[in-house]
Amino acid sequence: MLTRRTPISVAEAQKRINEITLTTSTEIIPLTEANHRVIATDVYAPYDYPHFRRAGMDGYAILASDDHDYPREFTVLGEIQAGATWDQPLRPGEAVRIMTGAYVPKDAEKVIRIEKTRPSADKQKVTIITSERKSNITETGTDVKKGEIVLAKDQELNPGGLAVLTAFGIQQVTVYKKPRIAIIATGTELLGPHDPIAAGKIFNSNGIMLKNLVEESGGIVDFETQLPDEANVIKETLEKQMASHDIVITDGGVSVGDFDYIGDEARKADQLLFNKIKQRPGSVTTAFIQHKTLVMALSGNPGACFTGFYLYMEPLIRRYQHQPSRLRKVRATLAAPYNKTNGFDRYLRCTYEFKNNHFLVYPNGINRSGSLANLQTTNCLALIPHSTTPMKVGTETDAWLLPFK
Amino acid sequence: MLTRRTPISVAEAQKRINEITLTTSTEIIPLTEANHRVIATDVYAPYDYPHFRRAGMDGYAILASDDHDYPREFTVLGEIQAGATWDQPLRPGEAVRIMTGAYVPKDAEKVIRIEKTRPSADKQKVTIITSERKSNITETGTDVKKGEIVLAKDQELNPGGLAVLTAFGIQQVTVYKKPRIAIIATGTELLGPHDPIAAGKIFNSNGIMLKNLVEESGGIVDFETQLPDEANVIKETLEKQMASHDIVITDGGVSVGDFDYIGDEARKADQLLFNKIKQRPGSVTTAFIQHKTLVMALSGNPGACFTGFYLYMEPLIRRYQHQPSRLRKVRATLAAPYNKTNGFDRYLRCTYEFKNNHFLVYPNGINRSGSLANLQTTNCLALIPHSTTPMKVGTETDAWLLPFK
Repeated sequence: MLTRRTPISVAEAQKRINEITLTTSTEIIPLTEANHRVIATDVYAPYDYPHFRRAGMDGYAILASDDHDYPREFTVLGEIQAGATWDQPLRPGEAVRIMTGAYVPKDAEKVIRIEKTRPSADKQKVTIITSERKSNITETGTDVKKGEIVLAKDQELNPGGLAVLTAFGIQQVTVYKKPRIAIIATGTELLGPHDPIAAGKIFNSNGIMLKNLVEESGGIVDFETQLPDEANVIKETLEKQMASHDIVITDGGVSVGDFDYIGDEARKADQLLFNKIKQRPGSVTTAFIQHKTLVMALSGNPGACFTGFYLYMEPLIRRYQHQPSRLRKVRATLAAPYNKTNGFDRYLRCTYEFKNNHFLVYPNGINRSGSLANLQTTNCLALIPHSTTPMKVGTETDAWLLPFK
Repeated sequence: MLTRRTPISVAEAQKRINEITLTTSTEIIPLTEANHRVIATDVYAPYDYPHFRRAGMDGYAILASDDHDYPREFTVLGEIQAGATWDQPLRPGEAVRIMTGAYVPKDAEKVIRIEKTRPSADKQKVTIITSERKSNITETGTDVKKGEIVLAKDQELNPGGLAVLTAFGIQQVTVYKKPRIAIIATGTELLGPHDPIAAGKIFNSNGIMLKNLVEESGGIVDFETQLPDEANVIKETLEKQMASHDIVITDGGVSVGDFDYIGDEARKADQLLFNKIKQRPGSVTTAFIQHKTLVMALSGNPGACFTGFYLYMEPLIRRYQHQPSRLRKVRATLAAPYNKTNGFDRYLRCTYEFKNNHFLVYPNGINRSGSLANLQTTNCLALIPHSTTPMKVGTETDAWLLPFK
């Protein structure tokens, strides 16, 4: 069925996706599984850190009033290993041997580091040779005071953050749930993974690509299938997966051919967000909402599917985690020729170089929408605005550096 | 035991780590588990891609010799859905309805897209209204020719690369094995994870930090423990883990205190790489080789442990994967005051901003070696060269942007 479609700009399509209200929810997970998850609540310090006065050096703890007239001999009362405490009073002329990280006696105001001392053979005495400027004591609460925010919400946790939480005895953390996403590839041309290659047939290369793109963007793929171009099978699978997922991503079946049933479903949906975008590749990229679930219908062409994911899906998946897109928009210079022109803006698959504090972009291999050989090495998309004349080498344009590349 | 140590520069320490000969090996894994793994062999195309002449548009396939004198009516021989083939000859005045991605009849040289045609009601005839410049046919091997390299070795696979391999029916891939790493935290001050906080004691915050740093850098942590400062326990555990791991990372016990048994092990080792570096924090950072296994002995101070990992361990773990460090060295400007001076170069924990194509770095919170509150938000290290006068705001220096931050 050939129907007219009204193309909208990429910015407008992105706006429509961005205006979808998300129902984000949270879950409590062990810290051991929390690297790269996004913390959903502010975390307050349950106690001061350090929570005791701590020696910064190996040496001898003494009274502040004793810190003069060196060299001078002190009586050594004992030693404090890291992990131990000390409750004896310290008097003038007395010192306590102390290790890095150990508990500093209440009265002590200074730790003279071991390099500036000379202990007696029996270790009962120590001669302090010179003083030093610093106290070598980290006071209680120097880093964080009890009740302060130690970790503000909406941050992606990293190993350093896990260390901070662990230092406060925190073993669980509230994070945003990842959206659950179903991926449905359509096309009678798709071979099963173990089939031999055959004329007219292709392997489902978009499936594995989309699954891994979703996962590295912060979503969970718990349903993945490939369907032949059969209206009922597609409709039934879509209905079922919409009921149990936050997002359904399809690829293929959105063109204007007789078997493009996803396009038909889009037209009948509760809300059609768009089914034509002024973009190359992937002008047929379609999005609709049915039963309150977004169906993102990407082109089956590998290059268009790849580009469509980054333009529309990555920012949405990141939004479930209260995070901005990881695509980094920069100004860049086209550094090698690209002579094709188009009435729609093109998102050209490129590689980039950062040289003399400037980004240079190079068209990467074959940029047809159906080509895929360049998908591994493409690490940015560069804008070739719609025009009837080729963009000149040396022209500045927008480019988007891709994450994990 | 207080012994003299000879400090070396950071560059020299890095060089010594970098000169360690690695025994990297490979393994074959399913493609479904290969995202972000590094491919260890060149992969050649087992067939052309596309491996059949493919329609780029929905439309009608015709002979080249028939592409003139429009509008003109053609007899429709049938239709080719994606996934199907076609073996009938095509004669003058005949057209075949064809879908995007479908197999193009052998004789056909052009696909006129559907928008430029008007089919009859019974679909037995079609009137082609105008021609078009492009053939809308993707020839066999346009993307990749049989026998060409489709994916060169030593690349970190990404979702696009997985798509490329899948398109060629490849379901397994040879990748570099990840190094197996043991992490041993030492210190009698370390509480068990479920203990209540107590004076003189701390939680093992370095353990979870190092485990996650190793894993996100491309190593496997399959042994993790914390030990009290007891010479025999430390020695035995070290010996055992050296025998079964590529690298053993320890933290704590490398200072000059009486219970710094890791330092003692280093002095007795087959090869001491270094046990003093002209760096802050973490001048006591130690590395030695025993029974052909590297022991990287990091400081127990959280800030020093964090910095030491990035300076010495991250590049080494990446080298097992034939990959450069993910730390990105840039020139940056100190944008806020840092007044402390030191006789050793300082790797200051900072945040950065990229503004007007220039990196600005800001000292992040408290930069003592024992402080940890800034570890989550630190996303770069900036060099404060050794000096007796503070580095002025506005001075350019080296900075290293940290990965996954």
